[in-house]
This record gives sequence, structure tokens and C-alpha cells, in this order.
Amino acid sequence: MAHSQTPPASPLELPTADVRAYVEAHRARFLGELSDFLRIPSVSTDPERREEVRRAADFLLDKLADLGFKTERLETPGHPVVFAERRVSADLPTVLVYGHYDVQPPEPLELWAAPPFEPTVRGGKLYARGASDDKGQLYAHVKGVETLLALSGTLPVNVKFLLEGEEEIGSPNLLPLIERHRERFAADVVLISDGAMAAPETPTITYGLKGLAYVEVWVRGAAMDLHSGAFGGAAPNPIDGLAKMIAALHDETGRVAVPGFYDAVVDITPEEREVFGRAPFDEAALAQELGVSALPGEAGYTVLERLWARPTLDCNGIGGGFQGEGSKTVIPSQAMAKISCRLVPNQTPEEITRKLSDYLKALAPEGLSVEVKDLHGGDPAVTPLTSRAVQAAGRALEAVYGRPVVFARTGGTIPVGSTFQKVLGADVVFVGMGLESDRAHSPNEKFDLVNLYRGIETSAALFRALATL
Amino acid sequence: MAHSQTPPASPLELPTADVRAYVEAHRARFLGELSDFLRIPSVSTDPERREEVRRAADFLLDKLADLGFKTERLETPGHPVVFAERRVSADLPTVLVYGHYDVQPPEPLELWAAPPFEPTVRGGKLYARGASDDKGQLYAHVKGVETLLALSGTLPVNVKFLLEGEEEIGSPNLLPLIERHRERFAADVVLISDGAMAAPETPTITYGLKGLAYVEVWVRGAAMDLHSGAFGGAAPNPIDGLAKMIAALHDETGRVAVPGFYDAVVDITPEEREVFGRAPFDEAALAQELGVSALPGEAGYTVLERLWARPTLDCNGIGGGFQGEGSKTVIPSQAMAKISCRLVPNQTPEEITRKLSDYLKALAPEGLSVEVKDLHGGDPAVTPLTSRAVQAAGRALEAVYGRPVVFARTGGTIPVGSTFQKVLGADVVFVGMGLESDRAHSPNEKFDLVNLYRGIETSAALFRALATL
Repeated sequence: MAHSQTPPASPLELPTADVRAYVEAHRARFLGELSDFLRIPSVSTDPERREEVRRAADFLLDKLADLGFKTERLETPGHPVVFAERRVSADLPTVLVYGHYDVQPPEPLELWAAPPFEPTVRGGKLYARGASDDKGQLYAHVKGVETLLALSGTLPVNVKFLLEGEEEIGSPNLLPLIERHRERFAADVVLISDGAMAAPETPTITYGLKGLAYVEVWVRGAAMDLHSGAFGGAAPNPIDGLAKMIAALHDETGRVAVPGFYDAVVDITPEEREVFGRAPFDEAALAQELGVSALPGEAGYTVLERLWARPTLDCNGIGGGFQGEGSKTVIPSQAMAKISCRLVPNQTPEEITRKLSDYLKALAPEGLSVEVKDLHGGDPAVTPLTSRAVQAAGRALEAVYGRPVVFARTGGTIPVGSTFQKVLGADVVFVGMGLESDRAHSPNEKFDLVNLYRGIETSAALFRALATL
Repeated sequence: MAHSQTPPASPLELPTADVRAYVEAHRARFLGELSDFLRIPSVSTDPERREEVRRAADFLLDKLADLGFKTERLETPGHPVVFAERRVSADLPTVLVYGHYDVQPPEPLELWAAPPFEPTVRGGKLYARGASDDKGQLYAHVKGVETLLALSGTLPVNVKFLLEGEEEIGSPNLLPLIERHRERFAADVVLISDGAMAAPETPTITYGLKGLAYVEVWVRGAAMDLHSGAFGGAAPNPIDGLAKMIAALHDETGRVAVPGFYDAVVDITPEEREVFGRAPFDEAALAQELGVSALPGEAGYTVLERLWARPTLDCNGIGGGFQGEGSKTVIPSQAMAKISCRLVPNQTPEEITRKLSDYLKALAPEGLSVEVKDLHGGDPAVTPLTSRAVQAAGRALEAVYGRPVVFARTGGTIPVGSTFQKVLGADVVFVGMGLESDRAHSPNEKFDLVNLYRGIETSAALFRALATL
């Protein structure tokens, strides 16, 4: 790459105001580029969208090549991984930015105010599937790099991008890829922006993520659907049976009733209770935002403790029999539920999937058979609050926002989080640029434009802060 | 109408062998006509099939007009009612044949071996939606009338046909219509063929039908779908809540746990227990046919007693959250179940719907709201075994089959059954021509051709037997 002009300043000496001025001057272009990215319906779980997912990868490869990165599309048995690298000096730390360019399915489509893959701006917010999770957030880092290069002609650290297309389906191919390329991906710090700050305008470093164990359970009765008049009172009913099984997954105190579920759980420490208590969180406001009269859960823990640091179990889907308009008097031959658990250290998806599966099978009502399929899992990941990377990142955020940084945990899962720690030996820092209200997996997903532009500034600040590790 | 030839015999003096010979001679034509009828996808619950339902009514009006009936299409706010009458003499009894030309939805389509509205014959069975329920059975009566007219030029009784297009959606418009036209529909006996004989080749008179109370329950939590990572542990989960509610609908002995559910139930008498005990019924064979290891139900009653004369409750459908391929980590904003109860005298749909609805609302878990919609209902109907109509019908069936007649009850519901008794003061006789194995509401519904042809003979025999009331 050739830089024809002498840079006005080294990246570490750049005035913060110059960074802000550059981002402000290029807002319209940044928004336009992100909108182009969001128009690509890269739904990784949908086999019919395979080529669209690939197109999203190519979009990123082009943008990163334009910034002087050495880029490569790493093929996998599933969707490709985007890898890009800009090496400055062997003496500088290396920062790897992880993100994902695949998105959740947009269904139910009828609940979107505008089509999910036609980005629209309303009230200072950008609406589209993937706007916040994770295209908007990862793209802020791409533009953070652009900003530093434009202002100083170089970067304060060696930068790598590792952007996958299978996060929403549990990253089935990324982990082996990281193992295989551990030298190439080597980094001192992994930066992940795929989540929310604790509250609007509140700089947040997240040091703990939950893990995930996700299963699908099928309950089967008669070999065919039956007339409920002819067979009611004798035919085993898979819906009734499945309901009984699901009802037995929690006890009356809200605790998960799967035997051994809590065996490996590291409980919240008194110090964490105190940190959590200081976090800006208002139970009544959350209940109002969700439109519910109560926020039920495990007894003995505050709502925030349950959200951030206690394992949970939820049904994510259920289906069986006649769901159409009107009334059909059928006893169906089968019914299905999707059930997932959010895990905390030291639970593992393998352990919990096995215990949940064994319990569901043991609950099978008379005359019904039960099958449990393991859909996917991810380990929980926690980074020490005292690590140098987390502290440096905290300073960078404080400089951008001019406010104290909140250190938090979250219930979200990024399966790759623990892998970066274990395989690369890197410190992993989660800097969520979105909001909990972004409707990450729901209709009308959005990303506040202020968070996009602030995110680009934050990215530039993080690269600068991490140069002095 | 003109009959150009002198009839060979009065309808009462016709040799039974002549009736059989006529039916045998015209089998191919009868099958062809019924197949034309079955090709019309008259799914009454589907608003997009409205014109097709009308087309099925017109098909019947044409066929009955061809037989010299005075026909009329009676309009309703929903689908039309076919009324046809052939009056012979004021001195003769009047027999009204009730049936329905609408059919259940065919879904799930992928489980049909051949398309549901393209009738196909395989192994002596006619496969199509409606083949048994109820197009095939009602059409047997049309052809029974044709047979008597062809052989004797007249009918032994005054005959009326009342054929509706809304049975599968609970006959919402028929009952007011019967009230309004009670003079016109007046009859001594109502014949209904819309069910099964007790076993293949086993002539069966059914003297009791269950009633029905059908509701749809919606459980709602947050105003929008939520990410289960971000909100798991605090957001009320409608699927989990609905499952708990459904699990509370039966106790551990298999009894329905809705308070007051059994208050009005007339229990099975010792005489009925004996009659039921003589019926040809094999629990092990049923379990094998259904492919299940057990036939669970209310403790203290045999399987047949539960099927025929005990009230039951079943979930007919359930849906909520993500049901597609793969894993979506969502806490849905709502979930829905369809729940129906089969009723026995003296339960009423109004009473049971109210009690079920009250109970479901009382079961609402913390943070969730519950809405119950009354979809439809029907009263149970029982005709005395000792009525002259039932006894005459029994003689007719015995003559056709040459075997003793089984007197039975069934779990099926024909909401109009009790109305004919109450409003017209008629004896109602149920003569099922199908089999329980016809898959009336399932994929691959069929009607054995032997039952079609035997049904036509049975119809002719019934009209003759009922002339001597």
C-alpha cells in the first residue's frame, strides 16, 4: 500500500477531537455503507440463503482490502470466515476483532413495520435485521480502522479481523478453524462488539458471558393423527404429555428442576453482588419496557443477578397439532419443543445437555416416546476484571464518553468467547455498542445511529489504548 | 316428475336380492359420481375455499333434482344448506336424512400418499379427504333413494334431505335455521350416517354421541419477542406458562382437573357396562393399530367406557415461538393452545366452556395474561334404545348384513343431533357406515368400497323398514 501524503500525526498523538470530527464529517457515507451491508439477507440457518451469506462475506473482504488489509476468505464446510490482517510492527501488540456477519431469521415477517432487509431510518434509529446484531457493531470497527488510517496513515497496533457467518447457528465450524490457524490468529487481545451497553450513553465493558445448551425434544404417540372424538380418552396425547414434561422443568421457586443442574455452578461472590448493585438498572423500568406485570425467576436472586450470573432454562418454541384458523378436533401424532439453557461457569453445554436429555426421557408419560436432539451449545466465558486489557479498554471508553465505565456480565452467549481465551491465550474484552432494547432477535431490530457513530470513535480509541499494554 | 314405466313392485314388496343386484350393476357409476363429489375441496374452515364449498352444495342439488326432489339452496351467513324433499303421501312417515358436504382441512399435505382432492382407489379403498366423513356416507343415502326409485318408481316414506356445509366448524348457522324452518323440516325420524360401525362388517346402531366444548387459549408475556440470552431469568415465558396450565388440566389418575367438570355427568349404568362388554372391541388390537404401548385415560373405566361414555379433555394444537429448522434463542411474546372437551349427558358446552375458561384464567402464571376464546360447542345426544325408530333400524341392518346388530355409543360429536330431538321432536338414529380406521380427520382418509355399496343397500333397507313405524 502507498500513502501519498505524510500523516499529520502518529496515531497515538491524534487529538481526540480530530477523531470525532472525522466521524462526524463522514456520517452519511458510513450509514450508506452499513445499509448496503444490511440489505444482504445473510440468514445462516436458512439453507436457501447460502449464497446471500457468501455475498455478505465478500462485502467485508472488499471493504477491508480497500483499507490496505491482506484479506482471505477461509472456506469451511458451512459458511466462510472472513480473515483480514494489517501488520504494523512486531513490537506492537496485536488486536483481533471478532464479529459475525450472519443474522437471525427475520420471521414473523408480518410484525415488521418495514421489510427486514430494506434498512430504514426512523427517529434517529436504523431499522433492519442485523442492524445491531452484529453487522452494525462489527462495521463500527471497520470504520474505526478507516478513521485512524485516514488521519494518521497507519495503525497504533497490529490489527486482525476474524468475522464469521455462523454465529447464529452456534459457530459449528469456527472452533476447529481457530485450532487449525492458532498461529495466524494469534493476538494479545480479542475485541468483541456483539452486545449491549448497560444503558443508553453508558460505556460498558462486559467481563462475563453465559454459555448455552440448546435441544429440541419430540414427543410421539400414535403413528397417525387421530380424531379426538373417536379416540379421546384412550390415545396418548403428545401435546398434553409435552406440556407435563415442560411443567416439570422448573420447581415452584423458579429453580430449574433438572437433576444436577446446579452442581457445577460458581455462585455470585459478595464483590459481584456489590458491583451489580451499582449498575444502572431499574426493575420497574424493565417491566414497563417489556409490558409485563412481573419479572419472575429463581428465588433468592435479584433480577440483574439472574440476568447476568445465574443459569436459566427457557422454551424457545413449541408446536404440535392444528395451529390454523378455526377448530380441528385432532389428537396429533407428535409435538415438538425447543428448549435452551443459559449456562454460567463451570457448567458445560455437554454436561447440561446430557442431564436435560436424561431428565426429559425419564419424564416420558405413559404411551409416549421421547426423542431429544442436541442442537448446539457454547461455553460460558469470564475475563478477569483486573486484566490489563480490560483496564485499558475501560480507560478508552471513559475518554470517549466522559463518564465512568460500567463493568458488567450478561446473559448472552458468544460460543467463541471461551475458545479465544483457551486456544489463543488472549484476553477477551466485550464492548457492546448496542442496547438491550435493540430487539436483537425480534421483529423491528434497530441500531441507534448515535451508537453507530459513537461506536466508530470507541473503536479508534480502543486501538489506541491497547497500544500501551 | 314422470315415471314412464309401471314399477315392477311397490317399494315394500321389492325382493332384497333385486336391491342388491341393482347396486352391484351400478357400482362403477356410483364410484364415479362420488369421486366427482370428492374432487371439490369443500373445506369449510378455510375462507379461501368459500366458492368450492358452494360448488359442493350445487353438486348435491343437481343430483337430488335429477331424482325428482324439490330442491332449494338455503342461504345462511356462512355456507349454504341443501334442502330437498320428495313427498309421497301424508299418511306415510317422514324420514329426514341429515349429512354434511363440508370436510376437514387436509393438512399436513406432505403425509398424504396421493393428493387429498384427487380420489384414488387402492386395495378396495377410496382415498380422499371427505371419503368417509361425510361425503361418502351421505351420498350412499342419495343412491339408496335412487335404487328404490329405479326399481319401484316411488319411495316407501316421505324423504327429506338436509345437508349442511358447516359441520366441521360447529354448525354455527344450522341450529337457527332448524328453528326457523321447523315446519318444513318436520320428520318422524332423522337418519344420520356420519360415523363408524363398531367393527368391519358389523352392523351398528349408535344411540349416543358425545358433545363438544372447544376453546383456544392465548398466553401473553412481553409486548415483543425477546432474546433469551438478554432476558432469560426475568421475562415471563408464555410457552412455559402455557405448559404449566395444560399440565394442570388432568390429575395423576387421568381425571380432568377442571373444578366441577364432572358435576353434571350421568355415569355409565350397570346395563350399559354389560352392553359395552359385549361389543366387539379389543384393547390390544387398538393399541397395535395406533402403534402405541399404552392407552392411558381416566382410572376406574375400561378403554371402551372412556371412548363411548366418559367425558374427556385433549389439546388439539399448540404453537409458540420458533418452530422452524435450527435454533433461535427467543422468548416469544405469546403462545397458543387449542383445547377441546368431549361431553356426555348432562354436561353442556356452555357450562364446561365457562368452567374450563375460569380455571385456565385462574392458572395464569405470574407476569402472564390469559385469554380464552370459545370456538364452538355441541350438546351430547342420546336416543332411547327402546324407541320404535331404533328398533326398526336395527331390523333393517340385520336384514342387509345377516348378522346381529351392535348397539353402541361413540365419542364423536354431531352438534345438530340433540337439536333434531329437541326442535323437531324426531327420533334420531345414527347409522355409521364407515370404520374407525378411516382416518376421518387425518391424512390418507379413506372409505372402503364395500362400505359404500353396503351403505347404499342399507339406506334402501332403512327407508323400507321405517315405513312401518
